[in-house]
Amino acid sequence: MKDASAGRGPSRRTVLGSTAAGIAGAGLGAVAVAPVAAAGPAVRSGAAAVVPPRQGATMAGVPFERRSSVRVGIIGLGNRGAALLPLFLALPGVQVVAVCDPVKAKAEKAVRACVKAGRAAPAVYTAGEHDYEKLCARADLDLVYVATPWESHFPMAKAAMLNGKHVGVECPVAMRLSELWELVDLSERTRRHCLQMENCCYGRNETRLLRMAHAGLFGDLLHAAGAYVHDLRSMMFSPTYYEGPWRREWHTRLRGDLYPTHGFGPVSMYLDLNRGDRAVSVASFGSPARGLAEYRAANVPAGDPAWRETYTTPDRTVSMVQTAQGRLVRLEHGVSTPHPYSRINSLAGTRGVFEDYPPRIYLEPDHRDDAWADFSAYAAEYDHWLWKEQADPPGGHGGMDHMMLYRLVQCMRLGLEPDFDVYDAATWSAPVPLSDASVRAGGQPQEIPDFTRGAWRTARRGVDSVRPDGSS
Amino acid sequence: MKDASAGRGPSRRTVLGSTAAGIAGAGLGAVAVAPVAAAGPAVRSGAAAVVPPRQGATMAGVPFERRSSVRVGIIGLGNRGAALLPLFLALPGVQVVAVCDPVKAKAEKAVRACVKAGRAAPAVYTAGEHDYEKLCARADLDLVYVATPWESHFPMAKAAMLNGKHVGVECPVAMRLSELWELVDLSERTRRHCLQMENCCYGRNETRLLRMAHAGLFGDLLHAAGAYVHDLRSMMFSPTYYEGPWRREWHTRLRGDLYPTHGFGPVSMYLDLNRGDRAVSVASFGSPARGLAEYRAANVPAGDPAWRETYTTPDRTVSMVQTAQGRLVRLEHGVSTPHPYSRINSLAGTRGVFEDYPPRIYLEPDHRDDAWADFSAYAAEYDHWLWKEQADPPGGHGGMDHMMLYRLVQCMRLGLEPDFDVYDAATWSAPVPLSDASVRAGGQPQEIPDFTRGAWRTARRGVDSVRPDGSS
Repeated sequence: MKDASAGRGPSRRTVLGSTAAGIAGAGLGAVAVAPVAAAGPAVRSGAAAVVPPRQGATMAGVPFERRSSVRVGIIGLGNRGAALLPLFLALPGVQVVAVCDPVKAKAEKAVRACVKAGRAAPAVYTAGEHDYEKLCARADLDLVYVATPWESHFPMAKAAMLNGKHVGVECPVAMRLSELWELVDLSERTRRHCLQMENCCYGRNETRLLRMAHAGLFGDLLHAAGAYVHDLRSMMFSPTYYEGPWRREWHTRLRGDLYPTHGFGPVSMYLDLNRGDRAVSVASFGSPARGLAEYRAANVPAGDPAWRETYTTPDRTVSMVQTAQGRLVRLEHGVSTPHPYSRINSLAGTRGVFEDYPPRIYLEPDHRDDAWADFSAYAAEYDHWLWKEQADPPGGHGGMDHMMLYRLVQCMRLGLEPDFDVYDAATWSAPVPLSDASVRAGGQPQEIPDFTRGAWRTARRGVDSVRPDGSS
Repeated sequence: MKDASAGRGPSRRTVLGSTAAGIAGAGLGAVAVAPVAAAGPAVRSGAAAVVPPRQGATMAGVPFERRSSVRVGIIGLGNRGAALLPLFLALPGVQVVAVCDPVKAKAEKAVRACVKAGRAAPAVYTAGEHDYEKLCARADLDLVYVATPWESHFPMAKAAMLNGKHVGVECPVAMRLSELWELVDLSERTRRHCLQMENCCYGRNETRLLRMAHAGLFGDLLHAAGAYVHDLRSMMFSPTYYEGPWRREWHTRLRGDLYPTHGFGPVSMYLDLNRGDRAVSVASFGSPARGLAEYRAANVPAGDPAWRETYTTPDRTVSMVQTAQGRLVRLEHGVSTPHPYSRINSLAGTRGVFEDYPPRIYLEPDHRDDAWADFSAYAAEYDHWLWKEQADPPGGHGGMDHMMLYRLVQCMRLGLEPDFDVYDAATWSAPVPLSDASVRAGGQPQEIPDFTRGAWRTARRGVDSVRPDGSS
């Protein structure tokens, strides 16, 4: 009687850095898993299946050029840009050189924040919707950070790379499949990184879970789930919270998941997607779209322009992603009905399971009698080195924003490869157009393109980076 | 500015008993919902789409004949039958007339339990795998209760009805689509009820939630979820817990959800499925199947017959059901990896959400600031009359078993219609074959037949019954 799998063996992650087969084995154990049936004839392989010819070498594993300081230009100074600005200013080795927003007052407020922090006043770009192009054309920038309405993420990321800048983009990186491919091609051609700035990848729970998963504590990983469940009704109908109705208007266009990256980013890290496994298909299912109309009926005066809108985005979209190794990911999106905030954030393997909101864990052999146990018991051993270094990070979203920017700037200053790249950006955002297509097709699975053009088979680290000094 | 939907209006469920349109409106509000796209060309409509010609009038809403006492025959005296027997014996007006199990010791133990309870010794049928047919042929039985391995549910239910008996069947009622249709036809032809004895429909949380939902507290219902997540590994490999390897062997046959009714039954009640709405399609997705093999490697001696088995049932199956009214149901099944018990049991509408395990609720206008609130606050007003009458029920599964049998016997003695019928039995079990078909087809949605042949449009009560004296 073998009991090789009964105790907790040595870290399966110690194979990291050897072969791709090794890393696949780390997640999936020794027994071969049949390729998922979802790759079969049921998958709708339309435009997604056409892999355009490569225009440059891969950007996977490509380090930044080393530099002592990072010169940043920020496009978009609304809720998000204004919240990130002080975090950038607080980081050593960062200069905010330029800021851009067509709303003059917001740009001026950003300038005041810089001056108040004892920094030089940044150059300001406020001359309309295309002034960002001038910001991107400056010669003194290393990084353009895009924190604008979703529809402008793509042209801004494109302008940044075409002007030789690395670019970090808020979620989602783009809304159309053709745009995702174009960003991949541009990144490869220009040799500039295009990063989906997914702060949730740096959550304390997410990074602890990632390290535990890669240390083998969950055994062979089987399924995971992530979500963006956040009641945004009052914000979406507020006349002041967003700059105009752009976010609500997306609910009149698509019938799928508008914001998959908060769930998909962390889950992709757990499952080594683009690093030994790959997301191959997504099938999506929507509930009725009633929440926004009901909220409007109760709260919006007759005659308001919002009354001309017809909302089509389901109040809940559930997307089922299958991976090349047969593993299963569930993504949920719901922002238009009452619900306490949740990213679901669950992970299960042959030896245990974690579920978040609230965090709870059950692992063999640590726990017994089917009773959830305390996740914080694993903090000391498994917290990410970022969280060990900086126990009380500044800024919003529980410190995730700071960790994300700190790590990006660290990688740029030390000349390291980033924790994620344009392939991750494209993969995490692909459910936006594909969930819409799947819902419209009655749940027909849609193929997720291989944006890596085969490089996904190579094992490499992601957010579970090694501390630059080599310690962990 | 209208605010008809801002406050909690009068119970929308007061329309019950009027028209089918009324009840559909109760769940879905005044605005028409477009038929779900899942009914479109993407749905695989093979054998499922062929609705065989009706062989008898509907059994929906058909009351039992009134009788002062109920004479019961029990087939199967393993874990389940032996647990239900004392509950039957404790109910007024019940006589256990006959028991059947090919394992003599189990039948004899049942006889002793009857005698010990001061009842007459039941007739015993132990002469092999077909002796149940003789039990069914007895003239002195009103109800046959089937608590045997899954594969025999269908022939036993069939034999009971062909012999003029009502039949209650443990979960699932049958494993094949053709069998589900045959049970529907037999019930209509013989005028005998064939009931899926789904104890979870009578859970205290489930029944409270049902009454709250139908009172309109969640607004228009949008999506729900249910599951059977129960780590059965040690039980499935135990040489004594089950009678032989039958339950484990199902894991070598199907690639889907083997046990959907614990989740689907209660959810169907919330959403009035077969009572104003209908499940029209299911698409299923499976994780790898690793848990049983890993458990076997760690715990089963070489040479054990279990080593000849190859497990194919996913460690987790997720099935997405869409309804005729466009609502969304998620069903999960996972019994072969470590996980604390969960039936998920969630329900969401335009005004709030409930999630179970642990129970928590958020409803407008009662709660605010996106903070979960205490579900027990609704007990006094919304608990089911069964649970108000009997606060401390006997027996296992938290009292659900008792409530289920109590209510069945009450309906039979008072000549009431049962809380559910053969259409519900077929609907709740249909995901067994259809999830297998969908997983094998790479997630292709499968059509769920309309077992009611159109009668689903008629509103009627289910487990949210009125107390026989008319009070509530």
